[in-house]
Amino acid sequence: MSNAPFAVIMAGGSGTRFWPVSRSATPKQLVRIVGDATMIQATVARLQPLIPPERVLIVTTAALAAETRRQLPMLKPEHVIAEPVGRDTAACVALAALVVQRLSPGATMIMLPADAVITPADAFQRALAVGADEAAKGGIVTFGIPPRFAATGYGYIQVAGQLRSESGGEITVSRVERFVEKPDAKRAAEYVAAGCYRWNAGIFAWRADVVLAELERHCQWLTDALAPVGVAWGTPRFAQVLDDVYQPLQRISIDYALIEKAKDIRVVTGGFAWDDVGSWDALYDHLPRDPQGVAARGEVVALECRDSLLVAESGQTVTAVGLTGITVVATRDAVLVLPKGKGQMVKNVVDKLKESGRSGLI
Amino acid sequence: MSNAPFAVIMAGGSGTRFWPVSRSATPKQLVRIVGDATMIQATVARLQPLIPPERVLIVTTAALAAETRRQLPMLKPEHVIAEPVGRDTAACVALAALVVQRLSPGATMIMLPADAVITPADAFQRALAVGADEAAKGGIVTFGIPPRFAATGYGYIQVAGQLRSESGGEITVSRVERFVEKPDAKRAAEYVAAGCYRWNAGIFAWRADVVLAELERHCQWLTDALAPVGVAWGTPRFAQVLDDVYQPLQRISIDYALIEKAKDIRVVTGGFAWDDVGSWDALYDHLPRDPQGVAARGEVVALECRDSLLVAESGQTVTAVGLTGITVVATRDAVLVLPKGKGQMVKNVVDKLKESGRSGLI
Repeated sequence: MSNAPFAVIMAGGSGTRFWPVSRSATPKQLVRIVGDATMIQATVARLQPLIPPERVLIVTTAALAAETRRQLPMLKPEHVIAEPVGRDTAACVALAALVVQRLSPGATMIMLPADAVITPADAFQRALAVGADEAAKGGIVTFGIPPRFAATGYGYIQVAGQLRSESGGEITVSRVERFVEKPDAKRAAEYVAAGCYRWNAGIFAWRADVVLAELERHCQWLTDALAPVGVAWGTPRFAQVLDDVYQPLQRISIDYALIEKAKDIRVVTGGFAWDDVGSWDALYDHLPRDPQGVAARGEVVALECRDSLLVAESGQTVTAVGLTGITVVATRDAVLVLPKGKGQMVKNVVDKLKESGRSGLI
Repeated sequence: MSNAPFAVIMAGGSGTRFWPVSRSATPKQLVRIVGDATMIQATVARLQPLIPPERVLIVTTAALAAETRRQLPMLKPEHVIAEPVGRDTAACVALAALVVQRLSPGATMIMLPADAVITPADAFQRALAVGADEAAKGGIVTFGIPPRFAATGYGYIQVAGQLRSESGGEITVSRVERFVEKPDAKRAAEYVAAGCYRWNAGIFAWRADVVLAELERHCQWLTDALAPVGVAWGTPRFAQVLDDVYQPLQRISIDYALIEKAKDIRVVTGGFAWDDVGSWDALYDHLPRDPQGVAARGEVVALECRDSLLVAESGQTVTAVGLTGITVVATRDAVLVLPKGKGQMVKNVVDKLKESGRSGLI
């Protein structure tokens, strides 16, 4: 068994919350939202040097695989695995674990989303390393983020007794008491006040053999169905076998298939900040702002503006005068203007574009 | 002498009030602001059938002549006359009059700007016809618009006694008492209340020989200097002669050179509506609006918006959510967002773009 951990980045998302910058062919993880790299490029870079590119796997969709490979030329093309159809997260985990088992039997794998902003990278890697060590012993490990505010958009993890701390107290390892779904505002405030709750960042660490054994125990139909995929890895038949096996699969989430049933899950809390940056409003918090509270990205001219987010992409220039609390996002072919705080309305715009036959803009 | 009037459209303007749709290479008169035609195309069309294309002359700048000809293929190319440099309106009038004298000695010419919205065309033509008849008798004729509100952006004409009315009272011909510069708000309100003031639309009618004689009387250096241009018309030397003659000219306006000095000017008031549509705010009044007061032009998706102007040009799509009182104008490479009523700030944006080295967008 190898101790060197793998990373499996789940990158099949297709959300519309960053429209018009993100599109169906280039969703959030494949565009530049924060910084100069795309979210998935930043996610891979953030793992260096703990997990070098040769131990990074990406699971994405057939439609996104080519663009994902293009953005990540340092990865082996076959390490960008295209699910033929989406069959929820348990299938994705099992698929990734079968591949890791073929690459390095019994290796630890860290599963993480492709589209979070996490800083600083070194603190993140220290936490991942602790989690990977914990997973190497055979446990199921998740990562928790101390809540900065009473977020209603995230799930929470209630922490039980602390088992140990590392890096001079920067990192703690605790038992998980329970996982909690996205709460309402009142409960979220209680969780923050209680001090024993963490945001669930959707990052897990486990050994490939361990997670497969756990899945086999709780959800044997899934591991039975997927077994041929592991056998076919590295052969020309892989894509066809994957397709044959995936199409008839029932959808089941890893939470329902495994996490809720597993005993003695550990949670690692590290010294890094995490944000899934789920909307244009959230992006505002990640950009530098002028003294009047104007956050600009790209070619922007702002006169007498306050508390606004101005984003120009794809050769666009955004000019704004006298705006207060407005978000403007301009691309080559589509512009979005809405008040700050209304970021969740982007989906209504996208729905309206579909309804009115403008799907080419989505 | 011919009775058939000519039209001379002054189309050398280079304003920035409709940026980013208008640019230095395609100022207001050469872009679509209202309706499906450019302002200059609409100006030419609005004269039909009273003044057919063969009797339309355009005076513009060297930089705009090619695009002007492209937009008006029904005009003889040489009827789009390019001033080598701007030398104010008296030179433009003298130049046009010299050309009309060559085309049809003693013909009446109606001089008008290229960028006003005037409706309906038939009422406008009836008023022009009355003015042309008046001018054919040897007078200097201007056209006045009954003020719809206390505008401070227009000059006014004070009307003296009415001489006659035509078209069942739709059109009146009066003496001009005096011309008034753009007033302050208090005076503008007084002018509207008085009932004997008209907006000065900058439209004139006179015979070419009459205006040349008047200019010779009040401003002989100008007619002396320009005389070679009339001689060179229709020869290959025309452009060179025009250039030689124009470069050293002193700048003088037709108001100062002639209008303020001429006696017995007549003003024609017609049954048409006139607006020079001087800003995005003014455009709002010319577009159809939904029940919430949203005026849209081009590909626009508006959700929960009120009292806003949304303009998408050049293949852009503008999407807006929850806006109140906002103007959004989007083109292929630049977007402008500002509160309604702040249209005059566009020039500050343009200045800022120049300062910051983005003159390519202007």
